[in-house]
Amino acid sequence: MDPRRTRSLDIHRVSGSSVDEAADLVAIEEPLEIRLGFRDGDDRSEKSVSITMRTPGNDDELAVGFLFAEGLLRSPADLVEIWHRSPPVPGEEELRNVIRVDLDDGVEIDLARLERHFYTTSSCGVCGKASLEALDAQSLYAGALAASGFGITRDAVMTLGARLVHEQQVFGETGGLHASGLFDADGDFHVVREDVGRHNAMDKLVGRLFLGDALPAADYGVMASGRTSFELVQKVAMAGAPMLAAVGAPSSLAVDVAREFGITLIGFLRDGRFNIYSGADRISG
Amino acid sequence: MDPRRTRSLDIHRVSGSSVDEAADLVAIEEPLEIRLGFRDGDDRSEKSVSITMRTPGNDDELAVGFLFAEGLLRSPADLVEIWHRSPPVPGEEELRNVIRVDLDDGVEIDLARLERHFYTTSSCGVCGKASLEALDAQSLYAGALAASGFGITRDAVMTLGARLVHEQQVFGETGGLHASGLFDADGDFHVVREDVGRHNAMDKLVGRLFLGDALPAADYGVMASGRTSFELVQKVAMAGAPMLAAVGAPSSLAVDVAREFGITLIGFLRDGRFNIYSGADRISG
Repeated sequence: MDPRRTRSLDIHRVSGSSVDEAADLVAIEEPLEIRLGFRDGDDRSEKSVSITMRTPGNDDELAVGFLFAEGLLRSPADLVEIWHRSPPVPGEEELRNVIRVDLDDGVEIDLARLERHFYTTSSCGVCGKASLEALDAQSLYAGALAASGFGITRDAVMTLGARLVHEQQVFGETGGLHASGLFDADGDFHVVREDVGRHNAMDKLVGRLFLGDALPAADYGVMASGRTSFELVQKVAMAGAPMLAAVGAPSSLAVDVAREFGITLIGFLRDGRFNIYSGADRISG
Repeated sequence: MDPRRTRSLDIHRVSGSSVDEAADLVAIEEPLEIRLGFRDGDDRSEKSVSITMRTPGNDDELAVGFLFAEGLLRSPADLVEIWHRSPPVPGEEELRNVIRVDLDDGVEIDLARLERHFYTTSSCGVCGKASLEALDAQSLYAGALAASGFGITRDAVMTLGARLVHEQQVFGETGGLHASGLFDADGDFHVVREDVGRHNAMDKLVGRLFLGDALPAADYGVMASGRTSFELVQKVAMAGAPMLAAVGAPSSLAVDVAREFGITLIGFLRDGRFNIYSGADRISG
């Protein structure tokens, strides 16, 4: 486990009328600046496109997952190199908080779109949509998603929460990390990613699939801790996955987007119960 | 209660081996575009500065709370009017998702700072800090916060979670809304605000105090549902409140910022227990 994902702190633990001083692990939160690198013959340039607060680890996946979800990257063939800045001397770990994704020579990015896209932004949940209209949900893989024959039994769904927690490497230590996991029709997890931010955990998961040329994820579902926002469903739609199951409640817009794409949306998955907000036909049993 | 805060949906409820079709309430999530309006004599201009996904309601508080937390507004005297776009015909409620905060004639905003501030952005948790350096925590009220004699008993802290839930108007219906509440030394809540996004709930709370000319909140603590990020602590510091208590875990950076400002930071406040990550001297027992 990357030691930079958790940190030990001296705290006071209060339980009833007792107070103990103790060491406690907290999840690391640090900024990551994501840059795009451009090539034109021998010319090189770069552009800062995002800063996100994340838990260090899988930064390359986070960067490409974010860029893919924003519609700026389309295929692994678009990118030629990923650079992660490293500290020249020990103790300056914050220097590692910059990552640059270099695009291949032939790849064009609509910089005007990038400006529009990122100019206005949000306190949480929307990655700088430049206008209300730009919030329209989109997916490269809407067709693959709609055509997916993916299905799962009710009993397998019931096991997803416990199995996701089991798969998390850090959760048991800090209690502070969100997770996103990719599961198959048997409820077995194939990829699990964690972060203090649930959107980042999803970006890391989608970035892993993107880098492995494994998109669309039409034969898999995604399980997420926490609540389900518009943006989480949008990211699942971009990945072409036909199911999103979450421990918490969905928002109205999350349900709208799931229904628009035909994504099966499950919420409140805990204690032997769950709600199906969309696409109940993919659940048998 | 504003009917636009929740919506009824037909869903499937699965419990063990039974499945029921039922109506279920979900929390509304819709985008809100925040604009700044400028006056120069008879000239008028406006600039879009942010779009956030929020639960409708208290939009004026959300807008000014956000602008204050970002350092763009300093006092209620800075603003002269708030305009909330209304639908000319029923059924076009989305037109209400634009709000404009008009600055008074003499008020200057550093537009270059605004550009830097919002150019690069985040998937969640950081409102477009333009560089890692810009993440440095800041507060207009660091002095008032440090000088605050606010204190509370351990027993009163234990009651905060249940009392916050009791104060929430919508939580019991949807299970899907985050809350931020302002409490006094007796643990009594004075203002509670809700939203699908916990950063928005905090912005609404701080915006309410800002509009009521009640900042700094040096004699109060803030209670938040969910986990504690860097940004939540930063917003509490901006409001000059000396205590933040949360149901969930804090991140490393949240603890760092709390310790820097001398904010008492409480986490995992539930089931008759809590952890104190910073400023234990404000809790008596």
